[in-house]
Amino acid sequence: INSKFPDTPTSIFTEMSQLAIQHSAINLGQGFPDYPMDPLPIQGVTKAMEDGYNQYAPSSGYLVLREKLAAKTLKEHGQSFDAQSEITITPGATNALFTAIATFIKENDEVLYFDPAYDSYRPSVIAVGGVPIAVPLSYPDFKLDIDLLKDKITPATKMIILNTPHNPTGVTITEAALLKLHDLLVGTNIILVCDEVYEHVIYDGQKHLSPLAYPQLRERTVSVHSFGKMFNCTGWKIGYIIADKHLTEEIRKVHQNNAFSTFSPAQMAIAEYMSDPDTYQRLAGFLQMKRDLLMQSLKDSPLKPLAVQGSYFQLYSYEGFSLMPEKEFAIWLNREAGVTGIPLSALCEQFGDHKLIRFCFAKQDETLKKAAKRLCRLG
Amino acid sequence: INSKFPDTPTSIFTEMSQLAIQHSAINLGQGFPDYPMDPLPIQGVTKAMEDGYNQYAPSSGYLVLREKLAAKTLKEHGQSFDAQSEITITPGATNALFTAIATFIKENDEVLYFDPAYDSYRPSVIAVGGVPIAVPLSYPDFKLDIDLLKDKITPATKMIILNTPHNPTGVTITEAALLKLHDLLVGTNIILVCDEVYEHVIYDGQKHLSPLAYPQLRERTVSVHSFGKMFNCTGWKIGYIIADKHLTEEIRKVHQNNAFSTFSPAQMAIAEYMSDPDTYQRLAGFLQMKRDLLMQSLKDSPLKPLAVQGSYFQLYSYEGFSLMPEKEFAIWLNREAGVTGIPLSALCEQFGDHKLIRFCFAKQDETLKKAAKRLCRLG
Ligand SMILES: CSCCC(=O)C(=O)O
Ligand SMILES: CSCCC(=O)C(=O)O
Repeated sequence: INSKFPDTPTSIFTEMSQLAIQHSAINLGQGFPDYPMDPLPIQGVTKAMEDGYNQYAPSSGYLVLREKLAAKTLKEHGQSFDAQSEITITPGATNALFTAIATFIKENDEVLYFDPAYDSYRPSVIAVGGVPIAVPLSYPDFKLDIDLLKDKITPATKMIILNTPHNPTGVTITEAALLKLHDLLVGTNIILVCDEVYEHVIYDGQKHLSPLAYPQLRERTVSVHSFGKMFNCTGWKIGYIIADKHLTEEIRKVHQNNAFSTFSPAQMAIAEYMSDPDTYQRLAGFLQMKRDLLMQSLKDSPLKPLAVQGSYFQLYSYEGFSLMPEKEFAIWLNREAGVTGIPLSALCEQFGDHKLIRFCFAKQDETLKKAAKRLCRLG
Repeated sequence: INSKFPDTPTSIFTEMSQLAIQHSAINLGQGFPDYPMDPLPIQGVTKAMEDGYNQYAPSSGYLVLREKLAAKTLKEHGQSFDAQSEITITPGATNALFTAIATFIKENDEVLYFDPAYDSYRPSVIAVGGVPIAVPLSYPDFKLDIDLLKDKITPATKMIILNTPHNPTGVTITEAALLKLHDLLVGTNIILVCDEVYEHVIYDGQKHLSPLAYPQLRERTVSVHSFGKMFNCTGWKIGYIIADKHLTEEIRKVHQNNAFSTFSPAQMAIAEYMSDPDTYQRLAGFLQMKRDLLMQSLKDSPLKPLAVQGSYFQLYSYEGFSLMPEKEFAIWLNREAGVTGIPLSALCEQFGDHKLIRFCFAKQDETLKKAAKRLCRLG
């Protein structure tokens, strides 16, 4: 058997979470909260199971949930999407991204995305025979600069994956950049996949900007969302796709064979729970305090924070403290300080080694303080 | 946008389930039980959620569940598989099949499977650039005859998908056929994907035969299983893959990017629940009575049953009653008799129209009797 993925390693999240357990380190690596989720959706799942929602949901999801999502999207982005034909529930956002790629990408089609990036993009493109093209961001501002993409577009370019708020850098896209993206794409048949899983995790009073809000971008946009990230239940593996009817029709040809449907009881529970927008709108303020707590607590450590506008994550620089490459440093930090982070290099292809480590601050205040204390002891 | 799937229709299960609702027909189409599942795993999910199992499970699943599956496989097939490196939990068997195909199939690789077939195989192969080759079974015995496959093997053949017990025909593979398959595959690098979702739904005292039981077949086998079908909860979308370490290593490179992980609470609940093998061993007797009840109740109808050895399904012939092609007949039956079945043609590529409709008998006795009464009125 010749491997189709000779250079795809085990996911860095798996690798670092295993190391964390091995060394009893505080895990600020993989992006998941260590605080409990709200009990209400738990009660909702129990009720749905007891009410008998244990058989296949419709392949694209229960309509009651999709209608809630259509209303939410209209309210937030001023664009109306049809619940029946333009919204699809998926077993998580990672699965949604894979499905979007498998729907539109064929042998030799090129897919552009900014580098660093969430680590699933590249192997997902390879899985369907496409060519992943990582476009390095500039350092240290990580600006989501459309001109960088422009230079890489060829006749083979069939998709751009945009992630905003961006994992792992925490940057967000500006309106000017979205308009530039519009100018770049209009008249082409390039699909825009927008990974918006951190849409409600955005700081300092900013508003999340989605390509769905722009009529001519929405026609070509496949927008990917995560309930796990919205409701602090990453292990529930439920997300959704919003895309114009002509795109959704194609997406469902893959979705029905890659997932068929998604855990029924959670769909019913979330449809009920999200009726109150506070259930997700409170996330930003809650996590901003955590971002600030970790930054504050690391003031006297050798790690220097980079700016972050959104997401669960903040990059910290150890330049001047250690000469180790990022991966080596992350392993060292795990073992010596008892704190686990993600080496930026594991999420990069072309982007160089800048002595950066990613910490997830979606953790209990106690966890963050304890981790910071350990890290302050280093310097 | 040029469609990658110009000839992939909406899943027949979606189409017929929608028609059933529209005409208030009794739905014997899509394969799901209409009786309640056991309350124990429901309580297990609630407990797991309350105990905080709401964040990412390990990508390949909680070890406690995988260890149960290793023990079960050893007991049933006499082969030992390592829980850590040879078992992977997936969001359903359909997703597992897609992942297996995406792992091993590249542009122009050929994939053989018997025709008729579960409708996801073909589009899943196309999604990754492979060439699906449907190999028609003989009528009316539908024997899973390895010689039929033998004739279609070329240097481009990279995978055979075997489904036993077979959906939609209900036939099962014999030991002689498995040994022939072994002879056919030994010395090649063809992967065998075995869709065993109906492994515990097997009748008349037969024992389920899996390629996992044969040392030289197990080396090349990717075996796919469904908890939804084992525990009457098709909407939970949880299944698993068993495959030798060298295959599992590759499979996880796709799995971690196509699913990452599976709904955590259900994994904990099922690990506990399946400790008692009666929870799945009782399925065969329970469903055999239903098969027989439907057959008995349809004695005076114009529909004649074909033999069935396993699965949720039985094919019925309407030859001599109507000249309509299968799809037209299924729509007519839905509207005129108020009973929904799946036209065999929707699950076929090369196999001709033999005036057959598939009924799912995994339904309450009352449902089956009511459906039969409606169908008896036809003749
Ligand atoms: C799917 S595991 C990784 C979760 C995540 O989004 C991250 O840590 O970047
Ligand atoms: C995934 S929907 C179809 C369920 C099934 O196995 C069938 O009806 O054949």
